[in-house]
Amino acid sequence: MSAIRHALNTRRADDFSAWYQEVISAADMAEESGVRGCMVIKPWGYGIWERIQRLMDDRIKAAGVQNCYFPIFIPLSNFTREAEHVEGFAKEMAVVTHHRLIADGKGGLVPDPAAKLEEPLVVRPTSETIIGDAMARWVQSWRDLPLLTNQWANVVRWEMRTRMFLRTSEFLWQEGHTAHADRADALKETHRALEMYRACAEDDLALPVIAGEKPENERFPGAVETWSIEAMMQDGKALQAGTSHYLGTNFAHAAGIQYQDKEGGQQFCHTTSWGVSTRLIGGIIMTHGDDDGLRVPPKIAPHQIVIIPMLREAPEDEALIEYCQEVVDMFASIPLTAFGERIRILLDKSPGKAAAKRWDWVRKGAPIIVEVGPRDMAEGKLAMLRRDALWNADNGKPAFQFLSREGFSSQAPSLLEKIQQSLFVDARDRRDAQITRGVTSLDEVAAHFADSQKYPGWVEVQWSKPTGEALEKVVEQLKALKLTVRNVPRDSAPADGTCIFTGAPAVERILVARAY
Amino acid sequence: MSAIRHALNTRRADDFSAWYQEVISAADMAEESGVRGCMVIKPWGYGIWERIQRLMDDRIKAAGVQNCYFPIFIPLSNFTREAEHVEGFAKEMAVVTHHRLIADGKGGLVPDPAAKLEEPLVVRPTSETIIGDAMARWVQSWRDLPLLTNQWANVVRWEMRTRMFLRTSEFLWQEGHTAHADRADALKETHRALEMYRACAEDDLALPVIAGEKPENERFPGAVETWSIEAMMQDGKALQAGTSHYLGTNFAHAAGIQYQDKEGGQQFCHTTSWGVSTRLIGGIIMTHGDDDGLRVPPKIAPHQIVIIPMLREAPEDEALIEYCQEVVDMFASIPLTAFGERIRILLDKSPGKAAAKRWDWVRKGAPIIVEVGPRDMAEGKLAMLRRDALWNADNGKPAFQFLSREGFSSQAPSLLEKIQQSLFVDARDRRDAQITRGVTSLDEVAAHFADSQKYPGWVEVQWSKPTGEALEKVVEQLKALKLTVRNVPRDSAPADGTCIFTGAPAVERILVARAY
Repeated sequence: MSAIRHALNTRRADDFSAWYQEVISAADMAEESGVRGCMVIKPWGYGIWERIQRLMDDRIKAAGVQNCYFPIFIPLSNFTREAEHVEGFAKEMAVVTHHRLIADGKGGLVPDPAAKLEEPLVVRPTSETIIGDAMARWVQSWRDLPLLTNQWANVVRWEMRTRMFLRTSEFLWQEGHTAHADRADALKETHRALEMYRACAEDDLALPVIAGEKPENERFPGAVETWSIEAMMQDGKALQAGTSHYLGTNFAHAAGIQYQDKEGGQQFCHTTSWGVSTRLIGGIIMTHGDDDGLRVPPKIAPHQIVIIPMLREAPEDEALIEYCQEVVDMFASIPLTAFGERIRILLDKSPGKAAAKRWDWVRKGAPIIVEVGPRDMAEGKLAMLRRDALWNADNGKPAFQFLSREGFSSQAPSLLEKIQQSLFVDARDRRDAQITRGVTSLDEVAAHFADSQKYPGWVEVQWSKPTGEALEKVVEQLKALKLTVRNVPRDSAPADGTCIFTGAPAVERILVARAY
Repeated sequence: MSAIRHALNTRRADDFSAWYQEVISAADMAEESGVRGCMVIKPWGYGIWERIQRLMDDRIKAAGVQNCYFPIFIPLSNFTREAEHVEGFAKEMAVVTHHRLIADGKGGLVPDPAAKLEEPLVVRPTSETIIGDAMARWVQSWRDLPLLTNQWANVVRWEMRTRMFLRTSEFLWQEGHTAHADRADALKETHRALEMYRACAEDDLALPVIAGEKPENERFPGAVETWSIEAMMQDGKALQAGTSHYLGTNFAHAAGIQYQDKEGGQQFCHTTSWGVSTRLIGGIIMTHGDDDGLRVPPKIAPHQIVIIPMLREAPEDEALIEYCQEVVDMFASIPLTAFGERIRILLDKSPGKAAAKRWDWVRKGAPIIVEVGPRDMAEGKLAMLRRDALWNADNGKPAFQFLSREGFSSQAPSLLEKIQQSLFVDARDRRDAQITRGVTSLDEVAAHFADSQKYPGWVEVQWSKPTGEALEKVVEQLKALKLTVRNVPRDSAPADGTCIFTGAPAVERILVARAY
């Protein structure tokens, strides 16, 4: 077996965190902007986000939820109306205090003291309070319910320690906000959104997730129940990849969202909110990336197939480009993929050596990379690389397959489907192998995370669902081990043991883990 | 001829401005948010924006421009680097000065004095300066050029007098930003974007526009050339519907966007920027709206066909809904429309009387409205209304056409195409009839706007293209008549007369008008 020369400098096993940064840079996905905590999302990163948006938006619309757009600015007083919400959020936020600049007399500019706002405006960290105001206007009668809205927007939370995609001061997301006549209908929506996130994560992003309820201490500020999908990164840490909240009537009371019921009485609505963000892209990197860079699941790849002609800046280039263009054209007439779309295919005619371009696309993680040289053309063939099976283990060389153009175009749709499936199955199996069950004491948990292999994964334990101070004590005990409760898996077996924290009979199973 | 009872309270001819506000409200497109100068865009308004985005984005991508995302916050110092830009923009902007809130001890919150930013951040009014920073990092060599980027984003300009869609403190837009090796290539891009806007406005939005160059005094701050598309509203006023700027090397000097040319020398890039915004929706309302509400061109209608079953909250409703659903299903199998899409069809099963719902959809401007009652069902028929030909002039009643389901579904695709075309042709002919040519003196211009019909439209005159102080004088003269120069039409005939302002030989033709 020969040594394989990988396309990145850093290997996951050596320094996972440095590897993550290198992937983002090597795949040209994003970069620091120079503005504190804000990133620039570059075309390959943004292209992936556009695909996620499109697929998630289709699911959102299919559920009858309608997109709107609400103001980016929220008056300060909105935040003081819902006590728990302000506790949880009214800390690190960007505050607009002035609406004009004037010259400072030294060639610079300063906020104009004469243009100070009477009431400062907060750049939205989330929009429950401002959308609550709108709901209070829109909901009058039971006929107006359920009210199902969503917006795609930027939000700002002033983060002290940022990491690209995972935690940035500004990020992009969607936030669904709905109002319902009663608890049952609102809970149904909370679970519909959760299930939508699970399906989109697993079926579109090839990201295996565990859906479940967050413990009380991890609830969204002002929520009655918070549910999440949790994904396992390759270093065994958890990433909260989406949340769905049942807000009870808390925000309805704060904003006055009331309706007249069928009997003529006034009732407060039960509301929900749910969101996923550009954080998902961080999850995709840490789930599907390898020592050669990113691997993008075909459904969300901006280009699913990249064709690289081996150009020599010579007159023969023209025929070669034409030969490649004919391959592209073949895809215009073949049936849609199993994903219901035309294949997204790029003919990369940019200047530069074909081998260098190949490695660029490997690092970016295009699912299928095709190279065509003059000899391939003469033989009516092309050379294909599967990004998810890049190396020939026997000789440490790229595992090119030589195919006729017709053979390639006819098998590409099903191949993309196989790659999508293969990325998912690999990630799911890896995750499942890293969940340790049957741990029955906190000491065992501590030992597992202290002694086990470098990436200890997640541990499932049973607990008595403590609340209040008892929960705080548990949180502290876990914190000492750098652990948190991720969630109470929706689909887990019933409890059958004792609580590892209190020794009382357990009521449910929870996952504890280190997390991003 | 009977009197027609229109679906709005206000008629265009009585109070165009009040009519505009009523359409927005009656079509449920947007509303004031309670946050100064910011609006809430509701599902029907946002759905139109989503369609505009999709169609414009396809055109942007087809031109090889790549979407990115840049920070919403721009450090204050960025604005002082380009002198003209700061002159034009550094006035009314939202300024973030603090990054934390604390309790004020009276139950409220205040910006934390301990969390004052060292350098205030401006909420982007436009992104030339922050994208310039990125371009300076990304462009090294001639091989990196042209660099073609775009972003879809929200921007904030603190407006004192706002009007929904037309002028709001926050609005949504796309902004293209490109860097080129030389003037010729940058100008080519400036014109490509301008032509893209013209094509999208006319072919997708059915909005006839005149593309041309803005005079010096109307240039974007820091631009060398500013081009616009100008649309005529039904009150004869002009709406600037999109702009494309050639920025010379001004922003490249300010941000240091340089490249090494083929000979090894260092050169500054020539940059462009171009944008359209949610303002287009205001243009659509004032171009296509009538005394019954909005009329949405089919290509950008969230629903192109709305089917309303005449429900009676009775057991028979089920069969009627099924009958209507079968119509919907017919459209799943028929060919794509001439627009290359599946027809967007809604079966409106919401509660309420069919007639009330019909008028709701008339006010919203769905291109085709279908009603189905039990008798229609018994006859295998349906009743169709074309929103662009709503009234039977003979009897003042809605002009229903009774069709078989098969007849309807087979003709609907071409009918949508006809409606799209008809809205465009009507608007173009109306505009052309309201452009007055052959006016040869400023007195005649003054008389035209003083004496002519209520909606005087635009006047074409010839001028000697004054600059500097001479132009300022012209601007003042026009301002006294409440007029501005809209643009120098790209496709107009050569000048052949004398300048109406100076008497000197004219060098070009310009359009003067009142404007939004």
